[in-house]
Amino acid sequence: MATVIKRLGVIGLGLIGGSVARAAKQSGFSAQIAGYDGVAAVSAEAVELGVIDVAYDSVAALATDCELIVIAVPTLAVEDVFAALAQVKGLFDSRVVTDVASVKGQVFEAAKRQFSNCPDNLILGHPIAGSEQSGVAAANAELFRDYRVILTPQNSQFDGKAHCLVSQLWAQACGAEVVNMSVEQHDEVLAATSHLPHMLAFSLVDTLVSLETKHEIFRFAAGGFRDFSRIASSHPQMWHDIALSNRDALLAVMDDFEHHLAALRQEIESADSDGILNRFQRAKKARDEFTELLPAKRSS
Amino acid sequence: MATVIKRLGVIGLGLIGGSVARAAKQSGFSAQIAGYDGVAAVSAEAVELGVIDVAYDSVAALATDCELIVIAVPTLAVEDVFAALAQVKGLFDSRVVTDVASVKGQVFEAAKRQFSNCPDNLILGHPIAGSEQSGVAAANAELFRDYRVILTPQNSQFDGKAHCLVSQLWAQACGAEVVNMSVEQHDEVLAATSHLPHMLAFSLVDTLVSLETKHEIFRFAAGGFRDFSRIASSHPQMWHDIALSNRDALLAVMDDFEHHLAALRQEIESADSDGILNRFQRAKKARDEFTELLPAKRSS
Repeated sequence: MATVIKRLGVIGLGLIGGSVARAAKQSGFSAQIAGYDGVAAVSAEAVELGVIDVAYDSVAALATDCELIVIAVPTLAVEDVFAALAQVKGLFDSRVVTDVASVKGQVFEAAKRQFSNCPDNLILGHPIAGSEQSGVAAANAELFRDYRVILTPQNSQFDGKAHCLVSQLWAQACGAEVVNMSVEQHDEVLAATSHLPHMLAFSLVDTLVSLETKHEIFRFAAGGFRDFSRIASSHPQMWHDIALSNRDALLAVMDDFEHHLAALRQEIESADSDGILNRFQRAKKARDEFTELLPAKRSS
Repeated sequence: MATVIKRLGVIGLGLIGGSVARAAKQSGFSAQIAGYDGVAAVSAEAVELGVIDVAYDSVAALATDCELIVIAVPTLAVEDVFAALAQVKGLFDSRVVTDVASVKGQVFEAAKRQFSNCPDNLILGHPIAGSEQSGVAAANAELFRDYRVILTPQNSQFDGKAHCLVSQLWAQACGAEVVNMSVEQHDEVLAATSHLPHMLAFSLVDTLVSLETKHEIFRFAAGGFRDFSRIASSHPQMWHDIALSNRDALLAVMDDFEHHLAALRQEIESADSDGILNRFQRAKKARDEFTELLPAKRSS
């Protein structure tokens, strides 16, 4: 593709930040890739691996030199980056800032605190892709291809240049499908489809660990356990941040789930054959319909 | 391999029964494969597909002609097959019977009822393999390769010819690893590693269906949902039978899980950062250790 910007800046050189950097470089979206990471050794590794062209030693220095800045740090660390960016004079005059945090409400509140409001050139976003791997060494230019990226622009931003630039980064450089929704809808949808499954996977493995002394449970882990528990290998700090950042929406959907599980438990206890069968048939029908949606577009 | 028996009989021509039939035939374990299914059209399809050589129209007729009989019907249907077999005079004088049901306590009780006790030539078993697919058309000789099969022989059966024959069927004809444990241990281990994850997957999809009207939830199904919910596409009748057959062990482990999930919920609500992080780290460590066990032997 034709070069869109001269220099992309990536703050936080983990799996996601590193993968955006690689995609922006390989596609030619940005002529140069600048990077900053709180751990100097990670910045050095990113240069060595060719993930970034140049490492900066501060957020402010990087921001000054870049046209588009991607914040790819854990959710709860975004506000500190905002605070550092707020020190850059005229930051939003000619620069666009976006992020990749898994929770948008918390980040939106942080932006209002640090910048007095949510600037038009700050476009919040979230790529619905990932891996149980982490770290810059796992960065991969194809990580986002055919996955969805949700942007949560405010109404005033929707047709603006900043929104278009961020959309181009994801759609053209990374090969993702960009969709837009409100901050609130994003957090409710993700609580149900991503955050809840992770809480269940962590809790399932935790339950089995507590039984492990009794039997060699994991030796006989059976049908579906591997797939079901894969996401329990995800990054603990990242999921800690997500759980706390999206607390209200997550607690609501955890309560919904507990209600459904308790109803199933009751049906099993009382041997309610029709109730169990109806419940499983309803779930299978929904899951099968979901499977039919998949070939057109990968969703997880 | 050298032919071990002249005729294997398979009762119930679904995915599992059909796959055992194909493996026994392709490996040469049995010179001929006989089959019976309660639905005549399924028997005819099995012959047409080459899954079995000859279809019988009754359990008793098939049993009379076979040296080894594999019962591959849903868990709650096994007792009816036992009742039909009990009518065959001298059944266990020269024949070995095994099954593939996912719950062993229920089947063991049924055997004691139908045969006055559990005969030495009845070896209960359970292949820890499967697929969310079902039906004879999905039968596959490689379905069990490198997976584990649990046999639950009584002490008196352990070194007998019947136990050896059934072990040969799974290990040599199907390429599985045979392990032995008690009926009680089997049902507790499977409740935790297989039955509980299925209850969670069905309940997760059920929860999302109830939210679907509010948002296009499934359109944005995210990180891990696909893997996590795959097993919710499993056969509803089969899982209905398992849930009811292994009720006590399943309810116990569902209660364990609910306890762990409620503890996590409490930590999130009270923003207990250390508690959440410790919990996720413990789960990740256990899951990563489990992953390291996998390359040597597939476990799910």
